[in-house]
Amino acid sequence: MRWARFESNGKAQTGIVEGSVIEVIEGDMFGDYKRTGHKVALDGVKLLVPLVPQTFYAAGLNYVEHIMEQAKLNNREPNIPEKPDIGYRANNALIAHDENVIVPKDATDKVQYEAEIVVIVGKKAKHLTEENALSCVFGYTIGNDVSERTWQKGDRTLWRAKNTDTFKPMGPWIETEVDLDKLQTTVRVDGKVTIEFETNNMLYGIERYIAAMTKYVTLYPGDMIWMGTEGASPDIKDGQTVEVEINQIGTLRNKFVREK
Amino acid sequence: MRWARFESNGKAQTGIVEGSVIEVIEGDMFGDYKRTGHKVALDGVKLLVPLVPQTFYAAGLNYVEHIMEQAKLNNREPNIPEKPDIGYRANNALIAHDENVIVPKDATDKVQYEAEIVVIVGKKAKHLTEENALSCVFGYTIGNDVSERTWQKGDRTLWRAKNTDTFKPMGPWIETEVDLDKLQTTVRVDGKVTIEFETNNMLYGIERYIAAMTKYVTLYPGDMIWMGTEGASPDIKDGQTVEVEINQIGTLRNKFVREK
Repeated sequence: MRWARFESNGKAQTGIVEGSVIEVIEGDMFGDYKRTGHKVALDGVKLLVPLVPQTFYAAGLNYVEHIMEQAKLNNREPNIPEKPDIGYRANNALIAHDENVIVPKDATDKVQYEAEIVVIVGKKAKHLTEENALSCVFGYTIGNDVSERTWQKGDRTLWRAKNTDTFKPMGPWIETEVDLDKLQTTVRVDGKVTIEFETNNMLYGIERYIAAMTKYVTLYPGDMIWMGTEGASPDIKDGQTVEVEINQIGTLRNKFVREK
Repeated sequence: MRWARFESNGKAQTGIVEGSVIEVIEGDMFGDYKRTGHKVALDGVKLLVPLVPQTFYAAGLNYVEHIMEQAKLNNREPNIPEKPDIGYRANNALIAHDENVIVPKDATDKVQYEAEIVVIVGKKAKHLTEENALSCVFGYTIGNDVSERTWQKGDRTLWRAKNTDTFKPMGPWIETEVDLDKLQTTVRVDGKVTIEFETNNMLYGIERYIAAMTKYVTLYPGDMIWMGTEGASPDIKDGQTVEVEINQIGTLRNKFVREK
């Protein structure tokens, strides 16, 4: 099932996407809801970020080639994480499918994408094991962890490198039925494929992260975990469009525009 | 004015604290609200965390003595931040005044407090200057940035060292009328003063942080910024109670209990 949030008559609404239409839903995506029978054309609505989480988790370094590439970029030895220590991103930076990434005037040219699968938590959870970790998962969406590499290298934290307004595109919707081992991530810049990788080929998988996290933290419905990216990205130029596709989920598309 | 959130008849309510009573409020603390005339005794209610933010910002290293102490603890040179790079904490860890900090079984003895003033944002803001930075501030509360120093030193991120469930006591309420330069922070462990410091004697002040942050990120009503702490903390033992008092605001009190 595909859950979307969208704007209709100036109001945020929730719906289930079926083919080219969205059926409007009343109630809570994670709890009690009912179908209204009211359907709108997917084409005619503005999609919103499918969720604003209570806590925005991000795995960071979680694919081997990406870790090697980042080490090269920063002229240091590769720093392979020894265990799944989770990190954070910030809600101010979230934008929806088809909204523009606005690159600040004083950013360097080293603005890059990171194509990620996003885990959406649907149930309150603590002390899960790797075996039952996925029991708290509601579904999956796509994130682009846009990064300004010069700031990432030079600042004490990742705040503006990764959390400048508009640097966290997410969407287009949440897909609840996914076969993780058959997922393939494909990134296109202006229509040309720049990387393809097996989405679930992570250093520490989703189950391992959730088991580790819930030893100490409670996950809540609507929390989300961005799982990291593979490989390197070219520097994205003013006016270029980045599409992140994960088969079975959909395609997240955003244009990068430099602030005038 | 003092704004509190509290539980009454099993429901979360908002109110204005006046002496020993709370007057119940209807509406939005940051927008339109009205006084109901209904008053309850402060003594008789359970206070809740005064706010759950959209984004939970934390300055981290922001007082000189604390930076020196942390360096000593980790056997390295003091790392004085060259500019106000903000960090993050996580909502799962928030607890209210008089709730217990639960220290996990496998935590080491190096569990410590960090007494902090917390800035509550009341207005959407971007591109503020140091001169008008405080125009977005609604008020101030108190935070205890509880930290497990062994995890802080050894993990790749601060996730469990600082964001284990219950590690972020905050409250008791939000005070809107404050003279920053006359604030004094006092910490007591089981009633005995362990440190006193001038709250506003920061490396980078509140105005400087807000001006730097809003160059890249939009602040929203209900966001909050924890401003860092001064000095060192003793290791807090099972059953000890930590009080953080900031004159003009109030006292945040929490018992530390080791998980059985």
